[in-house]
Amino acid sequence: MFNPVEIILKKRTGHQLTLEEQQFMVQGYITHKIPDYQMSALAMAIFFKGMSRAETVNLTKIFIESGSRITFPSDLHTVDKHSTGGVGDKLTFTVAPILAACGAYIPMISGRGLGHTGGTLDKLESIPGFSTSMTQKEFKKVVEKDKLAIIAQSADLVPADKMIYALRDVTGTVESIPLICASIMSKKIAEGAQNLVIDLKVGSGAFMKNIVNAKKLGELLKYTGEAFGQKVTVVYTRMDAPIGYAIGNALEIKESIQYLRGQDIPDLDSLTKALSKEMLLLTGLAVNERDALKKINHTISSGEALKQLEQLIKNQKGNPEVVRNPDLLPTAEHILPILAHKTGYIYGINSQKIGYALIKLGAGRTSLETPLNMGAGAIIRKKIGDAMLKDEQIGEVHTSNIAEGNQAITEILSAIQVGSLSRVGKTEPILGVVK
Amino acid sequence: MFNPVEIILKKRTGHQLTLEEQQFMVQGYITHKIPDYQMSALAMAIFFKGMSRAETVNLTKIFIESGSRITFPSDLHTVDKHSTGGVGDKLTFTVAPILAACGAYIPMISGRGLGHTGGTLDKLESIPGFSTSMTQKEFKKVVEKDKLAIIAQSADLVPADKMIYALRDVTGTVESIPLICASIMSKKIAEGAQNLVIDLKVGSGAFMKNIVNAKKLGELLKYTGEAFGQKVTVVYTRMDAPIGYAIGNALEIKESIQYLRGQDIPDLDSLTKALSKEMLLLTGLAVNERDALKKINHTISSGEALKQLEQLIKNQKGNPEVVRNPDLLPTAEHILPILAHKTGYIYGINSQKIGYALIKLGAGRTSLETPLNMGAGAIIRKKIGDAMLKDEQIGEVHTSNIAEGNQAITEILSAIQVGSLSRVGKTEPILGVVK
Repeated sequence: MFNPVEIILKKRTGHQLTLEEQQFMVQGYITHKIPDYQMSALAMAIFFKGMSRAETVNLTKIFIESGSRITFPSDLHTVDKHSTGGVGDKLTFTVAPILAACGAYIPMISGRGLGHTGGTLDKLESIPGFSTSMTQKEFKKVVEKDKLAIIAQSADLVPADKMIYALRDVTGTVESIPLICASIMSKKIAEGAQNLVIDLKVGSGAFMKNIVNAKKLGELLKYTGEAFGQKVTVVYTRMDAPIGYAIGNALEIKESIQYLRGQDIPDLDSLTKALSKEMLLLTGLAVNERDALKKINHTISSGEALKQLEQLIKNQKGNPEVVRNPDLLPTAEHILPILAHKTGYIYGINSQKIGYALIKLGAGRTSLETPLNMGAGAIIRKKIGDAMLKDEQIGEVHTSNIAEGNQAITEILSAIQVGSLSRVGKTEPILGVVK
Repeated sequence: MFNPVEIILKKRTGHQLTLEEQQFMVQGYITHKIPDYQMSALAMAIFFKGMSRAETVNLTKIFIESGSRITFPSDLHTVDKHSTGGVGDKLTFTVAPILAACGAYIPMISGRGLGHTGGTLDKLESIPGFSTSMTQKEFKKVVEKDKLAIIAQSADLVPADKMIYALRDVTGTVESIPLICASIMSKKIAEGAQNLVIDLKVGSGAFMKNIVNAKKLGELLKYTGEAFGQKVTVVYTRMDAPIGYAIGNALEIKESIQYLRGQDIPDLDSLTKALSKEMLLLTGLAVNERDALKKINHTISSGEALKQLEQLIKNQKGNPEVVRNPDLLPTAEHILPILAHKTGYIYGINSQKIGYALIKLGAGRTSLETPLNMGAGAIIRKKIGDAMLKDEQIGEVHTSNIAEGNQAITEILSAIQVGSLSRVGKTEPILGVVK
């Protein structure tokens, strides 16, 4: 029999916990035998003292075993993508349909927005009628039949992580690399994908501000996935500026549809192709990079990727008409122009600041109870390296409240850093790939 | 308005908290607005990141202001002693009566035993009838009339510390120097003594294992007391072996009475005189060390100190007869001889191990609910530097259960480290004094 205080002290003094000690704490916590205050003290001790790779794998195992695990036949080429979160990150809606159109099976269990970044589920729910809840049985059936489903974490999938994440969120213990790893990987393993590409965002707009910490997390994610027999590729991508032009739930869905219909959105295109390519290589659905890119381009030009998105929406009770007519998506009452406040070249865009500015319009959440305004958000047509002229219209804010919209415009402009007339180089979104 | 998570994060990243932020957390906690799990996460962050002197003084102030504060007229020569806890530590029962007999006023609010050390209140309650509960008004009246009272912390004295200490005890966050300081000093300031001598135990049997950490705590205690206008002297004393010969509630009261009746117990005598001397100098009741020692010796030889102890027991509803007839104290059914297991010189006595061995007989507590056996304990007549011969009777275990008593004997013998025949020097109990 273990003593919870001794386990906390063991971690506090920097020792490794055994599988049994971790089980005692986590299983005790989910059965209400270990109180919140001991679990939060342990989480804070883990924040400071870390966990070994073995401990992280053990915790991931305990999380997975706290619920039921989905499995797919091994010949199905199952693959998932996980992003650590960025502003304007709509890659799920471009990458997943492309992969499905290439023959992959994508069982995606996703999250809601928190902090300055939006959530995949929130964005999908901006499609009229779209439902993100499904039983595990239905989920498996839909994926096996139509290759793609994107749902919320159900009560029986990794409940231990769900409870502990909620506690970490209110106790200042989110930013622990091994705890983040166990939280991500337990879900990604339990949902049954045999291959996983991780889009690890690095930069001012990401949770990982620098490449050193990002690599620590990336390596641990890969190690943990592989410990459970999953193939993992980590793609490190820059998150210094929003992805694409649109930020906001319906606005991002609309932009994803436009991309799949062939519109040129350079950074979204680079990222979509980089991630899709790695996913195809990992599953063996492409033999080399050239083959992968050829297949990806074909799914877009042929309209097959768009058709997969339409099927996804149909399967999840949304209005599939939005794919042909994106104006059916919810809109905000007012569209206010963003006029450049000065002349010069843009050398930085603080996407975190922009994320927080748009939360106030209802585009994101400060808590799980925050009501969302599905049509709210912004279009920002400038990128790092672009020139802008004072009073030039560089985008729009979409809002149901003009005063709040004007406030958001002020904050967005203050987030765009404009330098002298000497030109700044464009930045490349992909920082590196670890297979 | 503050956000508790932001305050936890501020401390976690090593920043100082303002008075207002600390107030928000502590007052929120005692009014049940801040939940346990946020307070324990903050305590763990404080354990790792520490607190500045200013933060520690502020926390002490918040603790004091959470309840009522006792004050005595400034001409009363009020003085208290605080010990950080050791095995066989019965100095309160020798020092306090001596000081009262010298004309000092001693308002003592004390604690129960936890861990391997006994508690002053538990020991006093081994005296038949003795009560440690009193209202603050009664307490003040008794001290002003008869110079000495020793009571438990009442509900209205520093309730914030009481609640937070209980939480720290079950979350592995006790050993934080600033939190220990605020906990000790808030009580010592709120109880109204204008002078304070701290007996800071250092060594294997103490909470502070080495002089470096002990000095950190000692300096912080002194700084904090002085910030509230209290005069503080810190006496660093060795806690490598039990103090005196007796360990156990009634056994220690009995030994204290024997000392005040003139029995020679060298280490108890050194410590009693060292602490009493500092207390007399601090209050101004002695003009120099020689004067102090003369006065102390007189209170013992004249029987005045014993009379003060008798009066204390009378005032607190105990049977004052025990002072003349210590056999009226509770006894254990069985007295088992401790026979030396080998021949040699004693070079170490692990008093922590002995403390834990005797807890199992009921001499101490593992939790506040542990029932005590007032008569249980041990007499160990050997000290570091003494010789012992195999099968020599070196003491006795007092127990109500023979099997448990034999187990304790085995553990006590294993705690006594015996070397070859080369003699070890006796150790001096006083390590240093900081006035």
